[in-house]
Amino acid sequence: MDTQRTADLGFAKLDLDRADRTGTPEVVYAAGKTPAQTVECLAALLEGGAAPAWATRVDDETAAAVLERWPDAVVDTGARCAFVGELPEPVGNVVVLTAGTSDGAVAAEVVATLRASGVGCTRVDDVGVAGVHRVLAVAPRIAAADAVVVVAGMDGALPSVVAGLTDRLVVAVPTSVGYGAAFEGLAALLTMLTACAPGVLVVNIDNGFGAGVAAARIVRSAQR
Amino acid sequence: MDTQRTADLGFAKLDLDRADRTGTPEVVYAAGKTPAQTVECLAALLEGGAAPAWATRVDDETAAAVLERWPDAVVDTGARCAFVGELPEPVGNVVVLTAGTSDGAVAAEVVATLRASGVGCTRVDDVGVAGVHRVLAVAPRIAAADAVVVVAGMDGALPSVVAGLTDRLVVAVPTSVGYGAAFEGLAALLTMLTACAPGVLVVNIDNGFGAGVAAARIVRSAQR
Amino acid sequence: MDTQRTADLGFAKLDLDRADRTGTPEVVYAAGKTPAQTVECLAALLEGGAAPAWATRVDDETAAAVLERWPDAVVDTGARCAFVGELPEPVGNVVVLTAGTSDGAVAAEVVATLRASGVGCTRVDDVGVAGVHRVLAVAPRIAAADAVVVVAGMDGALPSVVAGLTDRLVVAVPTSVGYGAAFEGLAALLTMLTACAPGVLVVNIDNGFGAGVAAARIVRSAQR
Amino acid sequence: MDTQRTADLGFAKLDLDRADRTGTPEVVYAAGKTPAQTVECLAALLEGGAAPAWATRVDDETAAAVLERWPDAVVDTGARCAFVGELPEPVGNVVVLTAGTSDGAVAAEVVATLRASGVGCTRVDDVGVAGVHRVLAVAPRIAAADAVVVVAGMDGALPSVVAGLTDRLVVAVPTSVGYGAAFEGLAALLTMLTACAPGVLVVNIDNGFGAGVAAARIVRSAQR
Amino acid sequence: MDTQRTADLGFAKLDLDRADRTGTPEVVYAAGKTPAQTVECLAALLEGGAAPAWATRVDDETAAAVLERWPDAVVDTGARCAFVGELPEPVGNVVVLTAGTSDGAVAAEVVATLRASGVGCTRVDDVGVAGVHRVLAVAPRIAAADAVVVVAGMDGALPSVVAGLTDRLVVAVPTSVGYGAAFEGLAALLTMLTACAPGVLVVNIDNGFGAGVAAARIVRSAQR
Amino acid sequence: MDTQRTADLGFAKLDLDRADRTGTPEVVYAAGKTPAQTVECLAALLEGGAAPAWATRVDDETAAAVLERWPDAVVDTGARCAFVGELPEPVGNVVVLTAGTSDGAVAAEVVATLRASGVGCTRVDDVGVAGVHRVLAVAPRIAAADAVVVVAGMDGALPSVVAGLTDRLVVAVPTSVGYGAAFEGLAALLTMLTACAPGVLVVNIDNGFGAGVAAARIVRSAQR
Amino acid sequence: MDTQRTADLGFAKLDLDRADRTGTPEVVYAAGKTPAQTVECLAALLEGGAAPAWATRVDDETAAAVLERWPDAVVDTGARCAFVGELPEPVGNVVVLTAGTSDGAVAAEVVATLRASGVGCTRVDDVGVAGVHRVLAVAPRIAAADAVVVVAGMDGALPSVVAGLTDRLVVAVPTSVGYGAAFEGLAALLTMLTACAPGVLVVNIDNGFGAGVAAARIVRSAQR
Amino acid sequence: MDTQRTADLGFAKLDLDRADRTGTPEVVYAAGKTPAQTVECLAALLEGGAAPAWATRVDDETAAAVLERWPDAVVDTGARCAFVGELPEPVGNVVVLTAGTSDGAVAAEVVATLRASGVGCTRVDDVGVAGVHRVLAVAPRIAAADAVVVVAGMDGALPSVVAGLTDRLVVAVPTSVGYGAAFEGLAALLTMLTACAPGVLVVNIDNGFGAGVAAARIVRSAQR
Repeated sequence: MDTQRTADLGFAKLDLDRADRTGTPEVVYAAGKTPAQTVECLAALLEGGAAPAWATRVDDETAAAVLERWPDAVVDTGARCAFVGELPEPVGNVVVLTAGTSDGAVAAEVVATLRASGVGCTRVDDVGVAGVHRVLAVAPRIAAADAVVVVAGMDGALPSVVAGLTDRLVVAVPTSVGYGAAFEGLAALLTMLTACAPGVLVVNIDNGFGAGVAAARIVRSAQR
Repeated sequence: MDTQRTADLGFAKLDLDRADRTGTPEVVYAAGKTPAQTVECLAALLEGGAAPAWATRVDDETAAAVLERWPDAVVDTGARCAFVGELPEPVGNVVVLTAGTSDGAVAAEVVATLRASGVGCTRVDDVGVAGVHRVLAVAPRIAAADAVVVVAGMDGALPSVVAGLTDRLVVAVPTSVGYGAAFEGLAALLTMLTACAPGVLVVNIDNGFGAGVAAARIVRSAQR
Repeated sequence: MDTQRTADLGFAKLDLDRADRTGTPEVVYAAGKTPAQTVECLAALLEGGAAPAWATRVDDETAAAVLERWPDAVVDTGARCAFVGELPEPVGNVVVLTAGTSDGAVAAEVVATLRASGVGCTRVDDVGVAGVHRVLAVAPRIAAADAVVVVAGMDGALPSVVAGLTDRLVVAVPTSVGYGAAFEGLAALLTMLTACAPGVLVVNIDNGFGAGVAAARIVRSAQR
Repeated sequence: MDTQRTADLGFAKLDLDRADRTGTPEVVYAAGKTPAQTVECLAALLEGGAAPAWATRVDDETAAAVLERWPDAVVDTGARCAFVGELPEPVGNVVVLTAGTSDGAVAAEVVATLRASGVGCTRVDDVGVAGVHRVLAVAPRIAAADAVVVVAGMDGALPSVVAGLTDRLVVAVPTSVGYGAAFEGLAALLTMLTACAPGVLVVNIDNGFGAGVAAARIVRSAQR
Repeated sequence: MDTQRTADLGFAKLDLDRADRTGTPEVVYAAGKTPAQTVECLAALLEGGAAPAWATRVDDETAAAVLERWPDAVVDTGARCAFVGELPEPVGNVVVLTAGTSDGAVAAEVVATLRASGVGCTRVDDVGVAGVHRVLAVAPRIAAADAVVVVAGMDGALPSVVAGLTDRLVVAVPTSVGYGAAFEGLAALLTMLTACAPGVLVVNIDNGFGAGVAAARIVRSAQR
Repeated sequence: MDTQRTADLGFAKLDLDRADRTGTPEVVYAAGKTPAQTVECLAALLEGGAAPAWATRVDDETAAAVLERWPDAVVDTGARCAFVGELPEPVGNVVVLTAGTSDGAVAAEVVATLRASGVGCTRVDDVGVAGVHRVLAVAPRIAAADAVVVVAGMDGALPSVVAGLTDRLVVAVPTSVGYGAAFEGLAALLTMLTACAPGVLVVNIDNGFGAGVAAARIVRSAQR
Repeated sequence: MDTQRTADLGFAKLDLDRADRTGTPEVVYAAGKTPAQTVECLAALLEGGAAPAWATRVDDETAAAVLERWPDAVVDTGARCAFVGELPEPVGNVVVLTAGTSDGAVAAEVVATLRASGVGCTRVDDVGVAGVHRVLAVAPRIAAADAVVVVAGMDGALPSVVAGLTDRLVVAVPTSVGYGAAFEGLAALLTMLTACAPGVLVVNIDNGFGAGVAAARIVRSAQR
Repeated sequence: MDTQRTADLGFAKLDLDRADRTGTPEVVYAAGKTPAQTVECLAALLEGGAAPAWATRVDDETAAAVLERWPDAVVDTGARCAFVGELPEPVGNVVVLTAGTSDGAVAAEVVATLRASGVGCTRVDDVGVAGVHRVLAVAPRIAAADAVVVVAGMDGALPSVVAGLTDRLVVAVPTSVGYGAAFEGLAALLTMLTACAPGVLVVNIDNGFGAGVAAARIVRSAQR
């Protein structure tokens, strides 16, 4: 462990060898940082070898600062992500499903994470269980995938149904969509943790980034 | 309100006109009573005109006491209910579904309640969403029903799927089946309250009696 | 299930046969959509046969966009709903009660839902249990109804009292009215789930739409 | 404060002047003590001047130990209390209501506490809001009381109704009666804290002792 | 109950005989109403005999509307209350304590409620248990009072200490003051409910109005 | 979906084609069943082609019933599982880590699930972060694995550390080990969901079965 | 880190150098182990140099097994601890306070931990804030201590008062003593975390061991 | 206790002898006060002998008011603290660690508190367990410290790892950093309370002030 490289910016210690250790570089969480800090972090990661360097929870002001510094940066406004450096060629295929249209922002973060991780994906929106024929219609695409990511708020019931249809790993992302007893995503989280079908694995509420990293690991595992 | 009849047994005040007011007589909740108290309550309700007089959460000792006093009483051990007096002829039809076999005890209470209320029913067990074809196969029977009661623990996802298939009212009963993040039925309760399909109405965890009373009211409403 | 029609707008998959299956068309939840998206959804639903097409959680900007596209649309600002197409003639009668004046916005959504569903209703406001004579005075109107919807925040005690007075089904809607230990509607929700009178069925906090759909199903069930 | 007398038994420090300071002597909470420790505490309190000395949460074994030491002690098995020494003459009148028969054990503790505090009381059981005429019938007795204690589990709705009928202080005691979403008394507790009628004051779940002490203080306040 | 007078304003049903029944008139909760609605309610209550008519949670705009209609109205901005009509002469004495200066707004509501109820009071601020000598210094004033109201956020420990010093009833008001594990007043609420000294009665978080009404009832009880 | 085979035993509907659809056969959850019911289910699954047929949460009585019927069944008492039929040859390698010795029962269920699924595994116990050198020492074995399952109670911190060391997918199983603020596994569950290292996927508390199924899917995915 | 010694017993990996690293040896948590396993762990720790080797949560059967193996072992039944090997001479002084007699078992674990850690202590029981003069009387002993440990259940208010009286560090231990809204120690935990006096540090509910270890570290820090 | 000096400002009672009693003066919590009130409090504390007088949660407007009154006041904007009067010379050394850069604001409050308390410190940022080599690299600095303060949000896992590396007391500060199941710091709080390594003491979420006061007491204890 002693040889790990670190870039010490004072306000942050960047873990430059994280991609070597874990397959995913340290990614800048822009939410608690000034635009200048995010830019400084991205620059240090680029210099440390990240390809691409990458930030999540990027607001408009930060996006502008990134583009000013690197005019060819890619900013994905739906996913609130920014990428500096060339994006890898995608391999494999992850199916990303949403239960409703309001789950789209989280799904966008999943897709952006897969893209920056060099993994291909197919996104299908609005296939919630209130019209269960919609998810049944997607079954062939699921059967051809390396893994499935299911994004759902409110009752969070979609992963249970999907996991009963496939032998692929199901990564479930509860979202904070809903009101009242949805309790900011708690209802969907509990539903997914107690899914009556095994093979469902759960990440934090609204954590599209974590789901994308996990799905990318599954694809890479299949590539080894 | 002044003319309501009450049987005052000291430890309990029995509301003899409740069936007239609400369609369901006061029912003895045996859990917190001695066998002798339950028998005394049933006797007073019988005398007050209940047909049948009826107790829930009846344990073996209480069941024995009831049968000793009224040898022709009906004791439903699965539902932990006892009935004294003739059971009415059933009218109408309520479909009662369970997600898993462990939900059976609660479903039994639903069925017993319907029976004592003079409502017919069809029970179909173990049609949880992990094998969604099972519930799709039940669709024709649901279409022919007056109402549907769905009993489910763990992820509680079944009512969402059912309500998307039918125009019948869906009464959802969360059960305390499950462990860990099921939190004694809380997960299923929240799932049902946030069901993405409208037309789902929810009762308390494990409350088969309440679901049965409600379903009976729907059937009677259709009979008027 | 294979013949279900779907309108795929990219950002949304509209379930055009939902009214045939469930009695209620897919309704546009405008909260997470742009005004243009809501309009696009309404147009697709209209073309798919919805009568009326309908959106909930409509803000002022969306209402304006709807009215610009369909000048004869009906916008119910109290209920935050918009309807495009002719509203059906009402049949039946549902009594809608509120415990306090602050529960009015949720009750308005119940009433709008009933209206779009072709069900008549009688609304009586501010009959909370702190002056129990007020609800007793409404008893005759409840006795003449097909079903009762009770909307209450704070202690949520009104459905227990109402259910003890009537043999009609009581649909209880907890609201987020209150502060402190009301916990955004949680107190009222728990009260209603544990109501000491059977025959109370509960929907999500502030879910006037769900309560209206359920009450309409009861009325239709009685019409069959 | 320096002159407060204390009896130091090693395992307990008894506050002998508490009755002088607060109107209620230190009362032995027997639940966490051996029968011998409870007896030792009672003896020290008697010697310190308590009249009577008094223990709550007394099980059968402890009751026997008390009676062996003081054959004329009064043991109230319903309330699980034991009193040594002469009980005072009652003054005043507190009405104690229960919503259901299962709330009786807690009500018994209220009554025993009033008795040992020298306060008279009237207990009326089983007047829950599912038959609201029952509590209306009690209104005249409430109007003649110094204060009202309302004991209720499940939905805990009774105090709201009572407080709307009277100008007497209402002390509300939630009980752990109920199942599922009653959450061991939490539902009733929240209901009472958010009662829509002012004038309701709440104690801990199942805390009949605390409610009795508070009601006694009200009566004494009226006697001053 | 049949003779209770009600003023039906459409959006509200005012309970004109509540003061006769409960000692406190219906009070307008202005938070969910327009200024015009609050004024209309106050006018109806005045006409119905309230003396004074009274509103809580009054913001600046509503206060201005009240003063425009009744230039001699009394607006207590600290307590966010408005009174129309003559305030009664105070009798009795309630001591109102706060643990910290941030609890002042809630204490102001207690004081205003007592004032409108015709009860005198003594307010002592900032006597929290971190400097326990401060509350000990107040003991003589507590001993001379009819009742004590204790307002505290954060750890909510003050009522336990006060109740151990006095034989007066202690009305405890948890406030939402604090951060983190204070959970918007939940910590203080639980502390007060589990106070190790009996004689503590609790109201909802930040409910200065309820505490004031209760304390007024105690004083009136002593006056009878 | 119409061709799915089902074995209808009355009390249970066994989903005979689940292995074909999902890679894992329906597994008998013995906790809510009589020994005879579990045996009957296993027999039906065997007849339906399961290899092996398999039950979890098997108590001593059920284990005996299984062994009586199939003397060559394999009962894993540590994991509380029973297998009837030949176990498949293991392929691949999953590393299973526990934080403490008390997490062993859950880890045993993971191992048994992998075994019945035909997946090889390496179990390393008691490498919690209080002695972080222990987990560092395991890094080489993790680097050679197809996936990692981490079982931890109390603070649940181990998955965060492991996920920072490896590019393998980390399946985290919170356990109910611990007391007080561990809240029956809730603390560990929340820790794992909010792990600061991405690549952690979470199952329900104590759900060794679900973690094993998921890990087996990863291995199979790598084998395709 | 590479040179850390470990005793690998198969079911447990004992961290033999923990005392060198952290000042406290690995201590055997006997609750989840067989008596034989606890004995085996103690033996390995002894051999690894622990002085004394030490187990917590020891039941009667385990205590007997320890005494059979090491007849001169010290078993502290109040604290449920066992020590093998010579106990060190105590240095320094920690004052251990309890709020009530029921908190004694947890305080015993604090005292045993200090004893095995070679730290002196003074225990004072039953000084809860309901009689605040009791804790004021202890102030001189607190002033002479190196640190204070305060053990309290129910309202958990004692640490706030103590921390306002002293400049010593206050280690607060919430206990699960209490019922209802005490929620198994949650109320006391929240009270202590939000203590209005700074200088209060909190451990897990009932965690006498952790409090003792922390207090010992403070004393040792003062000895350096 | 009778001789404690108090400055009574009407809206606040300042405890002038708190520094003598507890080692830390009363500190002004500016969050609930006007700038003028904060200035008035600081002036009274200065006059009462505080050196320095000190306020926390200071916003820009209050900072300006302080600097206008005392141009040589020290305002630490990162920590939102203001100090009036000379800051003491630092003695001792506390290591302050953060898990991530977003925890910086809370760490700044720890550092400011230590500074005003006359205690030296070393701050090391961004050493979370996702790259565990970072914290291992800090071990020598921890070994040379008097105490360690660990500030962490999200999974809150860092204190467990640190406490396994050192014999210094570890003061753990959970922060509200994170989203979803972090529940505003609750996840980190529970993790720290259940840390598998003893010697961890916990303060309220985001309570940098309390952690600093506690760490200062440890240093002073070592200086005695």
